[in-house]
Amino acid sequence: MTTANPVLDPARQDLDPLDRLLDPQSIAVIGASTNPAKRGYQAIRALQDAGYAHPVFPVNPTADTILDLPVTSAITDLPYGVDAALIALPAAAVPDALRECARVGIPGAIVLANGFKETGDRGAEAEARLLEAIAESGVRVIGPNTSGMLNVSSGANLVGLPGVPDGPVSIVTQSGNMLLSLVNDDRQLKGPGFHAYVGLGNQSDVRYDECITALARQPETGAVALHSEGFVDGRAVLTALAATTPTTPVVLLRGGRSEIGQRTALSHTGSIAGSDAVATAVLRQAGAELVDRSDELAVIAGTLATTTALPAGKKVAILSDGGGHATLAADALADAGVPLAELADETQAALRRELGTAAAVHNPVDVAGATDADPTVFADCVRTLVTDPEVGLVLIVGLFGGYHVRFDPRLADAEDATARDLLTISADSDIPLLVQSCYAAEDLVNHGVLRAGGVQVVSSIDHAVRAVTALYRRGHRIASASERSTLALPAPTGPTLPAGVLDEPGARRLMEAAGIDVGPWTLADSPEAAAAAVADHGVPCALKVVSAQVLHKSDAGGVILNVTADDARERAAAMLDTVLSHVPDAVIDGIVVTPMADRGVELLVGATHDPIYGPVVAFGTGGVLVEALADVTFRAAPFTELEALEMIDETVASRMLDGYRNLPAVDRGELARFLVRVGDIVASNPQISELDLNPVIASGATVLPVDVRVILSE
Amino acid sequence: MTTANPVLDPARQDLDPLDRLLDPQSIAVIGASTNPAKRGYQAIRALQDAGYAHPVFPVNPTADTILDLPVTSAITDLPYGVDAALIALPAAAVPDALRECARVGIPGAIVLANGFKETGDRGAEAEARLLEAIAESGVRVIGPNTSGMLNVSSGANLVGLPGVPDGPVSIVTQSGNMLLSLVNDDRQLKGPGFHAYVGLGNQSDVRYDECITALARQPETGAVALHSEGFVDGRAVLTALAATTPTTPVVLLRGGRSEIGQRTALSHTGSIAGSDAVATAVLRQAGAELVDRSDELAVIAGTLATTTALPAGKKVAILSDGGGHATLAADALADAGVPLAELADETQAALRRELGTAAAVHNPVDVAGATDADPTVFADCVRTLVTDPEVGLVLIVGLFGGYHVRFDPRLADAEDATARDLLTISADSDIPLLVQSCYAAEDLVNHGVLRAGGVQVVSSIDHAVRAVTALYRRGHRIASASERSTLALPAPTGPTLPAGVLDEPGARRLMEAAGIDVGPWTLADSPEAAAAAVADHGVPCALKVVSAQVLHKSDAGGVILNVTADDARERAAAMLDTVLSHVPDAVIDGIVVTPMADRGVELLVGATHDPIYGPVVAFGTGGVLVEALADVTFRAAPFTELEALEMIDETVASRMLDGYRNLPAVDRGELARFLVRVGDIVASNPQISELDLNPVIASGATVLPVDVRVILSE
Repeated sequence: MTTANPVLDPARQDLDPLDRLLDPQSIAVIGASTNPAKRGYQAIRALQDAGYAHPVFPVNPTADTILDLPVTSAITDLPYGVDAALIALPAAAVPDALRECARVGIPGAIVLANGFKETGDRGAEAEARLLEAIAESGVRVIGPNTSGMLNVSSGANLVGLPGVPDGPVSIVTQSGNMLLSLVNDDRQLKGPGFHAYVGLGNQSDVRYDECITALARQPETGAVALHSEGFVDGRAVLTALAATTPTTPVVLLRGGRSEIGQRTALSHTGSIAGSDAVATAVLRQAGAELVDRSDELAVIAGTLATTTALPAGKKVAILSDGGGHATLAADALADAGVPLAELADETQAALRRELGTAAAVHNPVDVAGATDADPTVFADCVRTLVTDPEVGLVLIVGLFGGYHVRFDPRLADAEDATARDLLTISADSDIPLLVQSCYAAEDLVNHGVLRAGGVQVVSSIDHAVRAVTALYRRGHRIASASERSTLALPAPTGPTLPAGVLDEPGARRLMEAAGIDVGPWTLADSPEAAAAAVADHGVPCALKVVSAQVLHKSDAGGVILNVTADDARERAAAMLDTVLSHVPDAVIDGIVVTPMADRGVELLVGATHDPIYGPVVAFGTGGVLVEALADVTFRAAPFTELEALEMIDETVASRMLDGYRNLPAVDRGELARFLVRVGDIVASNPQISELDLNPVIASGATVLPVDVRVILSE
Repeated sequence: MTTANPVLDPARQDLDPLDRLLDPQSIAVIGASTNPAKRGYQAIRALQDAGYAHPVFPVNPTADTILDLPVTSAITDLPYGVDAALIALPAAAVPDALRECARVGIPGAIVLANGFKETGDRGAEAEARLLEAIAESGVRVIGPNTSGMLNVSSGANLVGLPGVPDGPVSIVTQSGNMLLSLVNDDRQLKGPGFHAYVGLGNQSDVRYDECITALARQPETGAVALHSEGFVDGRAVLTALAATTPTTPVVLLRGGRSEIGQRTALSHTGSIAGSDAVATAVLRQAGAELVDRSDELAVIAGTLATTTALPAGKKVAILSDGGGHATLAADALADAGVPLAELADETQAALRRELGTAAAVHNPVDVAGATDADPTVFADCVRTLVTDPEVGLVLIVGLFGGYHVRFDPRLADAEDATARDLLTISADSDIPLLVQSCYAAEDLVNHGVLRAGGVQVVSSIDHAVRAVTALYRRGHRIASASERSTLALPAPTGPTLPAGVLDEPGARRLMEAAGIDVGPWTLADSPEAAAAAVADHGVPCALKVVSAQVLHKSDAGGVILNVTADDARERAAAMLDTVLSHVPDAVIDGIVVTPMADRGVELLVGATHDPIYGPVVAFGTGGVLVEALADVTFRAAPFTELEALEMIDETVASRMLDGYRNLPAVDRGELARFLVRVGDIVASNPQISELDLNPVIASGATVLPVDVRVILSE
C-alpha cells in the first residue's frame, strides 16, 4: 500500500490542503522530462533558478535523473505527503494521476493541460472525467488550462516566469498573459513587486473565493490583485471579500464587462456572463476596489499594499511645483469625489513663511519656483502640511526628484536628503505620502529611497489620483467595517410555497409578514364589497382585479383609479365586465382596494435572484422615465442600513429626496430601512426569483409600495 | 534712424510675423549674460547645443562676446529684421524693449519675465504697461510668464530644455511643466517626438487660436497637442479648430475643469473660468480630440500624428495571443463606442487555416498559442484581416515583439522580420495598425522597426484603445467635414432692440420672424377677447398674463390651463384679479391665448451667450426631472443639421424619441432643423443673452415651444 510510504514531513499533514498547495514545501513534478523543450523539464529548471530550497521530486517512468535530481518512476512511489504536484501530463492522463496523488497523500495539484471545458463541446467529456477524479480523490486542483502558480518568496516558481520581483502583491487570474502584463507594469512603475500568483484557468476546483482568503492569510501578502473574466460562485466571492477586505485590500480588474467582451471571455475560459451593473455594485459593496483600466491594476494594488489608508474624515493636500500639474490633479480628484483639505490659517501662514510671496498656499499648494534652487523646501512644506487637522495624505505632483536632472546636478544630494526626510515625516506623523513626478520613469536615487520606504512614485497624475482615491475609499471602509453586511445568506425561513406568480393579495401578505408596510388594503369579493371598502377607507381609491388568468391587469382594463364611494359599485362592476371581455375565461378571485397614493417621489424597488451573486436588490428612479433613464443600482442582500444609504446616494433618484421642486422631502433613514427589509426578505426566501415594488411612493417618513409583484421559483 | 540699419534678410520681411517668430531664422537674445547661472547665458548655450544654424545676436550693454558670439550693445544696434527676440529682462524693462524691437523690425518676441497679471493686483499695472507697448509696437509677443518656445527641427531652443526628440507633435500650453511631462511621457512611450513647443504663459498677445493655425501650417507638424487652463477668446479657438482639424489633428487636455481646478488655474495664469459642460461640447464640436487624462495627451497626439484614421464606416479588428488582453480590449472599445468588425466567413476560414482549431477566429481573433513558436503567423493573420471588407484598423494586443524574451531568444529574427512585414502589409493595404504589447517598455528591435515605420507600440491596453477611438472618430469627422459649421459668427441682423426681458408676444414674434413656428396664439386685450380667442382656436387653451411688472407669471397666478370657450371669460377675469392681488401695480398688457399642447416628448431647448465661446444652444430632457437629471448638451451656434443630430444623440432625451412607452415617435430631422434655426437666431442676434424654450413638445414632425422667454442685452 502506498499509504505505507514514508511520510515526508509529518508536521505539514495537518495543515489546510490549499495552504500547503499555495506555499508548498515539497513539490512533485509529474510528467518531468529530460527534454529541455518540454514544460516538464523547464518547470524543474525554473524551481532551481528561483532558488527553491525544498525537495523537488521529478516523476518519470524511464529517466534516472533530471537536472541532477533523482527521478521517481511512479507517483505511487513518492514519499507520502508531498505538498504539491505540478501535473504536466496531457488531459487524458490527468484523472488517473490525481487519484494516484491522493493515494500518496498529495493534498493539491496544478493541472497545466488544456483541452477541457474551455474548448466547448470537444472538451466536455474530459472536463466531466476531471471533475469525477477531483471529487473522488479529494485532491485540490488549480486549473486545468492554467499557466501555473508562483510563490516568489519561497521560489516555488511553478509558472516558469523568471525575474518576478519579490514584494507584497498576490495575484489571482485566469489569464497567464495578465501575469506578464502585471510584472511588466510593475517593472515600468518600479513598483513594490509580487508575493504570489495563482493562475486559476478553468476554475474546475479551486476558485477565486478560496484563493482570496488563503492568499490574504499569508503574511507576505499586502494586497490581492484579481483579474477575472467571470466568477463561478459569485456569492462565495462576495463573502470572501467582505471577510478579507477590512484587513487586506483586494483590487479587481474584470474582463468581459461588455457584451462582446463576455463572448470573448466565454470562448476561452468557459466563464458565465452576468449583468455588469449588478457585478460592479455588489463587488464594490463587498469591499473590492474595482479598476476599469488594465493599466491600473498593478499601480493600485502596489499602492494599497504599501501605503496606509487615509483615516476616515481626513482629506488630501496637494503640493506642487507648478500650476499645470496641480490643476490637473485637483480636477482628477474632484472627478473622483475625493475632497481637498481646507488648510487652516496657521498652516497657510507657515507655508507662506517657507515659500515666499509668489507661492499659492491654499490647497493645492504651489511652491511656484521656491524649490528650484533648494528641493529641501519640499520637506519643510510636507512637515507643515502633516500638522494640519484636515490633512490625511499628501500628494506631491510635478518634478520632485528630477530637480538635479532639470536644473543642476549639484541638487542631487539635497533631493536624496529630502527623500529621506519625507519618509521620516510620514512615519512620525502617520500621514501617507504619494509622489507623482515627470521623472518617475528614470532610475533616480531619491525616488529609490522613497520607494524602498514604501512611498510610491509614479509618472502619471491619473494613476496617482486613482491611487489616492483608493486609499481614501479604503479609509472610509475600514472605519465603517462593523456596520457592513458579511453577505452570508441566512438559513431559509418560512414554508415552501408553490412556484409561479403570486396574486396581489398573496404578494401583499408576504410583504406584511416580513414587516413591510404596504398600506391599508382590502380584498373585496364583489363590486358591492369593493364599494363598502372604498367607503371604509374614506378617500378615493384604486381598484385592481385579482385573477390568476389576468397577468397584465392594466392591459385588460383591470385597474381603475380615483374611485369614490359614490361611483365605486358601478365602476367596479364595469371593470369586471371589461376584464371578462378581454379574458373571457378569467376566474375573478376578488378586487384589491387601496387608497390612492399621496404625492411623493416615485421610486423603483425590486429584487432578483442573480445567477452569479444570488439575491440582489435594485433601487432607482421610478415613473415614466424608468427605461430611458435606467437609473438603477444594486446591493447583494442581506445588507445594512449604511449600505442602503450608500445605495440611495448612488442614484439620480437621491437628488429628488430633499424636497425637489414641489415634492415633499423624504426621510432617507426610513427609505434605507425599507430597503434593508426588502433585502432581508429576499435573502431568507430563496424561492423569490423576482420582486417588483414599482412604483414605491416616498414622502416624509412614508415609503409605500403602490404595487407588489412576486414571482416564486421551485 | 534704426530703420537705416542693414536689413538682415530681405526675403523674410514679407512673411507673416507669427510664422517668423515660431520658426525664426535669426534670434536676438535681449538680456544676454556672461553669467552661466543666468537665463540670458543659458539661452545662448541651449541654441548652440541644439545646433541652431542661424544667426544669434546677444544683446548686452557691456559684454564683448558671450559663448564666442559678438555682443550687440543695444537693441537698436541690431541689424534690421531679426526674426525673433528672446527677452530675458525683468518685467519693468520689457515695454521699452518691445518698442525698441519694433524700431529694428523685429516682428515677434518671447517675454520670459513674470510679475504681470498672474500675480493678481500686484501685477496689474505691469500688465497694463505691457499691453500698451504691444499695441504701440505691433511686436507679436509670446508670454509673459512663459518658459519659452522651441522649434526642434531648426534647433531654435528658446526654452532651454535639452534632448527633446525631433518628431511630428507640436505643443501649445501655458505650463512649462507640461512640456516636461510630455517629453518624459514620449520618452517612456518611445513615441514619435516633437516638432515645436510654444509656452503661452499669460497669453497677453499671442493666443491659442493663432498658434493652432500657425503650427498646423508648418509642414513638420503632424498633430497639435494643446494643454490649456482657459481660453481668452474661445470663439477664435473654435473657428481655428474647425478650420484646422479636417487636415491636422488637434488633441486638447484641459486643466481647470473642476471648480477647485478653476480656482487653481486662475491663481497662476489669470485664466477665465467657464462652464465645463459647454467647453467640452463645443470644443469637441469644433473637432478637437479632448483627453481627460494628462497621461493620454502624448500618446494620443503621437498616434494621430503618425497614423491614418480609419475610413468612415470601417471597424476595428483585434488580434491577440491570449484571451485576457483580447477581452479587456474588447470591453474598452465597447465602452468607447467603437465597433468591432464582424469578420466575413472567408476571413474566418482563412484565419482558421492559419491558426488551427484552438484559435478563436471571430473578432477578437485569439491565436491561442499558434504563434508561440512562430511569430510570423502574426503577419499572416494581419495580411488576412486587412482584406476583410469591414476592417479599417488592426489592433494587435498581447505579447507581440516579446516572444523572444518570453519563450526563446532564437525567435528574435522572426519577430524582426514580422515587424517589417507588418509595415509592408499596412502600407500596401492602407489599413493602419496599432500594437499593444506587455514588452513595449523594453527597447526591442522589432518594436523599433514598427515605430520607425509609424506604427505606435504601447504597453497600456487603455492607451491603445483610446488611440484607436481617436482614429475612429477622426475618420468620421474627416468624412463629414463638409457638413459641419465653420463656427464663424455671421454679421448681426435686424434692428437693435431695447435691453431687458422681452414680453411673451415680443418673444414669440422674434421667433416667428426667424422662421420658428411657435404654434397658433392670440394676444387678447380683455377677458372677453380671450374668450373669443379660445372659441376661435376651437380647443381647450392655456391663458397667460402679459405684464412687464409680472416676472414670474405662474407664481402670481397668471397662468391658467385647459380653459374652454364656456368658462374662458370668467376664468380669465379671475386670473387678472389674482395677478393684481399679487402684484397690485401690474399694468396688464394683455392675455396670450394658446391651444393646450398635444401629448409629446417634453424637451428643453435654450441658448445663452457664453462668456468664452459666444452664442451656444442647449438641448436636453424637459419636464419635472430637468434639474435632477441635468440631461443637457450644448453646441456653439451657428451649427448644421448634422451637428444638431449628433447633439440630440448625446442626450438621455434621445432615448425617448422613437416611440418611448406610449409617447408618439419624433421626427429627428425636424427636431434637428428646429435646433439649427434656434442656433441661427442666436448667432445672428448678439443681443440675445438668454433664450428659453421650455418645454418644447415634440411629436411626429411637430416641434412646438410651449413657452418662449428671451432676455436681450445692450
